[in-house]
Amino acid sequence: MDDMPQAYQDLVQELQSIAVLRSCASVLSWDEQTYLPPEAAEYRAEQLSLLAGMSHDRATSPKIGEWLEQLTDEAALGGSESVAAANVREAKRGYERSTKLPRRLVEELSRVGTLSQQAWITARKNDDYETFKPWLTKMIALKREEAAALGSESGLAYDALLDDYEPGATTEIVSQAFQQLREQLVELVAAIRDSGVEPQHEILTRRYPTETQRQLGLHAAKAIGFSFESGRLDVSAHPMCCTLGPRDCRLTTRYDEKHFPGAFFGTLHEAGHGIYEQGLDSSAYGLASGEACSLGIHESQSRMWENLVGRSMAFWEHFYPETQQLFPEALSDVDLATFYGAINDVRPTWIRVEADEVTYNLHIMLRFEIEQALIAGDLSAEELPDVWNKTFHSYFGMTPPTHALGCLQDVHWSIGLFGYFPTYALGNMYASQIFQQAGTELGDLPTMFRKGEFTPLKEWLNKNVHAHGRYYRAPQLVEKITGTPFSAEPLVNHLRSKFGPLYGLG
Amino acid sequence: MDDMPQAYQDLVQELQSIAVLRSCASVLSWDEQTYLPPEAAEYRAEQLSLLAGMSHDRATSPKIGEWLEQLTDEAALGGSESVAAANVREAKRGYERSTKLPRRLVEELSRVGTLSQQAWITARKNDDYETFKPWLTKMIALKREEAAALGSESGLAYDALLDDYEPGATTEIVSQAFQQLREQLVELVAAIRDSGVEPQHEILTRRYPTETQRQLGLHAAKAIGFSFESGRLDVSAHPMCCTLGPRDCRLTTRYDEKHFPGAFFGTLHEAGHGIYEQGLDSSAYGLASGEACSLGIHESQSRMWENLVGRSMAFWEHFYPETQQLFPEALSDVDLATFYGAINDVRPTWIRVEADEVTYNLHIMLRFEIEQALIAGDLSAEELPDVWNKTFHSYFGMTPPTHALGCLQDVHWSIGLFGYFPTYALGNMYASQIFQQAGTELGDLPTMFRKGEFTPLKEWLNKNVHAHGRYYRAPQLVEKITGTPFSAEPLVNHLRSKFGPLYGLG
Repeated sequence: MDDMPQAYQDLVQELQSIAVLRSCASVLSWDEQTYLPPEAAEYRAEQLSLLAGMSHDRATSPKIGEWLEQLTDEAALGGSESVAAANVREAKRGYERSTKLPRRLVEELSRVGTLSQQAWITARKNDDYETFKPWLTKMIALKREEAAALGSESGLAYDALLDDYEPGATTEIVSQAFQQLREQLVELVAAIRDSGVEPQHEILTRRYPTETQRQLGLHAAKAIGFSFESGRLDVSAHPMCCTLGPRDCRLTTRYDEKHFPGAFFGTLHEAGHGIYEQGLDSSAYGLASGEACSLGIHESQSRMWENLVGRSMAFWEHFYPETQQLFPEALSDVDLATFYGAINDVRPTWIRVEADEVTYNLHIMLRFEIEQALIAGDLSAEELPDVWNKTFHSYFGMTPPTHALGCLQDVHWSIGLFGYFPTYALGNMYASQIFQQAGTELGDLPTMFRKGEFTPLKEWLNKNVHAHGRYYRAPQLVEKITGTPFSAEPLVNHLRSKFGPLYGLG
Repeated sequence: MDDMPQAYQDLVQELQSIAVLRSCASVLSWDEQTYLPPEAAEYRAEQLSLLAGMSHDRATSPKIGEWLEQLTDEAALGGSESVAAANVREAKRGYERSTKLPRRLVEELSRVGTLSQQAWITARKNDDYETFKPWLTKMIALKREEAAALGSESGLAYDALLDDYEPGATTEIVSQAFQQLREQLVELVAAIRDSGVEPQHEILTRRYPTETQRQLGLHAAKAIGFSFESGRLDVSAHPMCCTLGPRDCRLTTRYDEKHFPGAFFGTLHEAGHGIYEQGLDSSAYGLASGEACSLGIHESQSRMWENLVGRSMAFWEHFYPETQQLFPEALSDVDLATFYGAINDVRPTWIRVEADEVTYNLHIMLRFEIEQALIAGDLSAEELPDVWNKTFHSYFGMTPPTHALGCLQDVHWSIGLFGYFPTYALGNMYASQIFQQAGTELGDLPTMFRKGEFTPLKEWLNKNVHAHGRYYRAPQLVEKITGTPFSAEPLVNHLRSKFGPLYGLG
């Protein structure tokens, strides 16, 4: 560090100090999701708005611009391939984005987001879309304003937002990947439906005492490598993984006594995110080299542990005896094969987060389609429920009976996360491609899982994915790891080779 | 507000905005006490230090000084008796204190305080004073530096610190009040010891399942008037009440299956603090008119609900049948009189927070004596354990067997709270005097408690204590409420009239 240009040292110090301030806001957000008393929501919005404004002020300070201008000579940073050069490149990108946004808008987005989310929680609970509608309208307007301020190469407002979560991605790129995937998924779903095989999914809605669910979840999260010395697991309305600082990663889940997979796979999913966060270089917290590559890559980590590991036969060969023992009332008469079939039951459902591996991506495509229209101004909050239901029907052949099971189910839009959903499906694709490579390099993963050995995979991910931070763009990272360009094929192959035998497909 | 001078409006806006920022730090502090993963402590110190520095910068900004200078004409504020004049007076006091402290010191106090507290937690757990000693040494040095920067009329460093918690109080005032009290307490303790009466305190260390303890605590806190719509109860190493915003008051307690009174009276105690906080004018949050009068008055509220209400016979005439039902294993063979005797068992103990009403104040006097010496520079962290044990022996005739039961028991010094302890004993005195007046005005309080009616007292406190915020100094407030000057006599009278009959004293 000492031999770096002074401007670089100053920049790093300032970025890491801004990260401290931002992380304070994360503590407040986490608390908002987990423990906030109802009447405190309004003031929490003021607190978060103030912190957002202060962070924005510092992140857009002219001195950062000056340092960045002094750092255009990449040779002084150790060459264009150096970590320092990547940090500067990403700092520049962040600075340019931030300076396009007025402080008023940033504060307003934070303030309205907090209140809107509280409104969403109540609306979803009461299945009352009308009370949420004005908040969504406000949020869409603010995000359209943000998109207009940011601009995008394509001229699409949606691209400006998407780029924030998946740097470099565009509507066009995502659409192409989805198109390739959609056809094959629809075909696979139809084949499964027509197979006549009916997994006994109802065993998963027997009685599973929540405290025991919590214990098993903690145990599994720890087993796959999430550290509770620098993390926690709590309860919130919407499961999440929230980083409150370089050694402070908080997972949440929700328990339903009559639904085993929700909390268990939710915990594995969030633990997957958490393992990524814990695998980042904590000394570079606040710099690109210490931050996640993209939300798509983030999701690749959560979906890998949730599905490619957590819903595999090998995983349950290890965990099922213990699980069966913990839930004698629900599982004493259920053998492993039946349980495995049930947790891999493929059928259209209302709720995205509870969807199986095959239909899940269709839920994303539906949202991708709808949120593009919301941000383009082609669709209003007023029309949303109707359009949601119709589009849902076109994808799944059925209509949600309530809005809570329809357009009210996800938190994202309430806090302005438009352009976020596609990263989930990208994550599934990245996950399969990366996981396939891990198997090639590490040898027989199922044999390891069967013995409860998850450390080799975790450490391989630490080294090949986490350690790079945001040095590469997501598709570059995938190509660097796997040696082949990013593609939907590994995901399709995985689904076919897993569900083909399960459903007796030819 | 609109007819107030512009400088007043600006001042109020800025003070309330600083309060938002300070409240963010409170969220982080609360989380530190309750849910922080072990490895996150170091970064939490950075976060809190940054927020402390930023708050300090704003609180000492010259524009506040300019507004205050423009507001010397109290007539423009509605006269010297107006709430606005009191707000300005207190703002001036706060500004003058703050501007005497360099930002570096404020940040250092925050940073070291966070780490030192973590060290204290570990040291107490392991009964290992040596690991805590360097932190305490550092803390004493920082607080001495703070006291020197602040100065005091008496010239005593300790007075500069005391004044922060109990505005207007001095070593001399406190010493006089304590002297008056000590003699009579020692006499009463001796009489009780010689009475031959032996309450069956061992019934309180039978098995009380913690989840049931929690439920009873929640129920009782709610019954006396703490609102869980704008508050919570969690678990922490050291019980506390922490305000995170105008409608966000967090209580904590700790449960021990083999010790009923700890969590129960701890919860009542913290709920008493919480009821005070919830009774303050939330629209004036950040101004003197919306803040507590002093820590002594704060403690008067917690001790009133804990002891004057919660350890009274009438309270248990209402709560005992339910309690007995909740803990059949521990209490089915215990009648009300025996239980009442046990929770009012007077005997020397090691731990302050578990002490009875009579000996409690002696624990405070001990600390008052010792912390004066620490701050005066007459006593070092090196010498503390030995001096603690000797002084403890002089007060209680016995020597703590471990440091965890001795000088390591309290969190206060680890976070630099020197000058804080005396407010606990002042609180006991204020509480008795105020409670006596409440009885005079409201009529027969025990009859109300017997019926589970706590609202009249709570609302009387709302009106007579809470609504005034920090308009008055503590002794003034007590005199205004009761019509007589502050005195230790009501406390002594209360103790004699309660414990005399219990121990068959003449």
